[in-house]
Amino acid sequence: MLNYKHEKTEQIILGIDPGYADMGYGLISRSCGRDRCLAYGSLRTAAGAPTGERLQDIHDGLVKLITEFHPDQAAVERLFFSRNAKTAIPVAEARGVILLCLTQQGVSCIEFSPAEVKMAVCGHGRADKTEMQKMVQILLRLEQLPRPDDAADALALALALASTNVPIMV
Amino acid sequence: MLNYKHEKTEQIILGIDPGYADMGYGLISRSCGRDRCLAYGSLRTAAGAPTGERLQDIHDGLVKLITEFHPDQAAVERLFFSRNAKTAIPVAEARGVILLCLTQQGVSCIEFSPAEVKMAVCGHGRADKTEMQKMVQILLRLEQLPRPDDAADALALALALASTNVPIMV
Repeated sequence: MLNYKHEKTEQIILGIDPGYADMGYGLISRSCGRDRCLAYGSLRTAAGAPTGERLQDIHDGLVKLITEFHPDQAAVERLFFSRNAKTAIPVAEARGVILLCLTQQGVSCIEFSPAEVKMAVCGHGRADKTEMQKMVQILLRLEQLPRPDDAADALALALALASTNVPIMV
Repeated sequence: MLNYKHEKTEQIILGIDPGYADMGYGLISRSCGRDRCLAYGSLRTAAGAPTGERLQDIHDGLVKLITEFHPDQAAVERLFFSRNAKTAIPVAEARGVILLCLTQQGVSCIEFSPAEVKMAVCGHGRADKTEMQKMVQILLRLEQLPRPDDAADALALALALASTNVPIMV
């Protein structure tokens, strides 16, 4: 039997900005304290399709991402009750599917509030969207501003988790 | 090849009252316009366990129910923004998992508002909890009042769907 213990120097982190119509995702790799972007984008579900089908699309899309990139950890935005009550319920339903999927796939998950992400990426909790996107661009040395918004937020979530990480013994 | 078409006279209906700590469920069979209760209960998740694990418990419990009873259709309560904002998000997360699971298992799902259920079961939209439970007990000829509350609500949802059903050609 092969018996070994090593320090894994590369961590793959998946950031997720939960959404029902669009789920933002961002994948980064942290190695020797340096972060690089692997992929980012937005997973869209078909408007007008039944809720269950749209939730299944989110589930299946997420499984595909996990199968392709094998993330070690995921960072998911925590939801707060907003004034826009009508959209909060479908977003929370999608978030439930996302948390289920991560658990089923064995990806440990840490939740961050929007203020925690801003603090980790910009150094203060009141950064606006443009400031956040610029910091994500700088930190990941991207050629252009990350778009769409939810993909940029997902990359910021991944960076927030990366900044709190210590090497994991496996 | 066997080629037949018949009218299925028995419909199995699963009612679900979505919840994160407790998910109420009720299974009824409608045959020749007569409803009978097959099972009801509450699926509890472990307080203090991580959210993903509790959502997985809901998913796995629901798969088990579907595998055992093979429901033709499901009735799930629609969520509205309540004053109790703190519990609405976890309930919506659980509801997302429930809708996903029904879709994955091929069980078609219809959503009902609490007022629609009261109207279908009691004949008016303002019935209180006790009136609803008594009507569920009478309609399903149960020996005692259905308990706990969320299981009674789930049976009421199943009855509401049964009352709107026409025979399905299979």
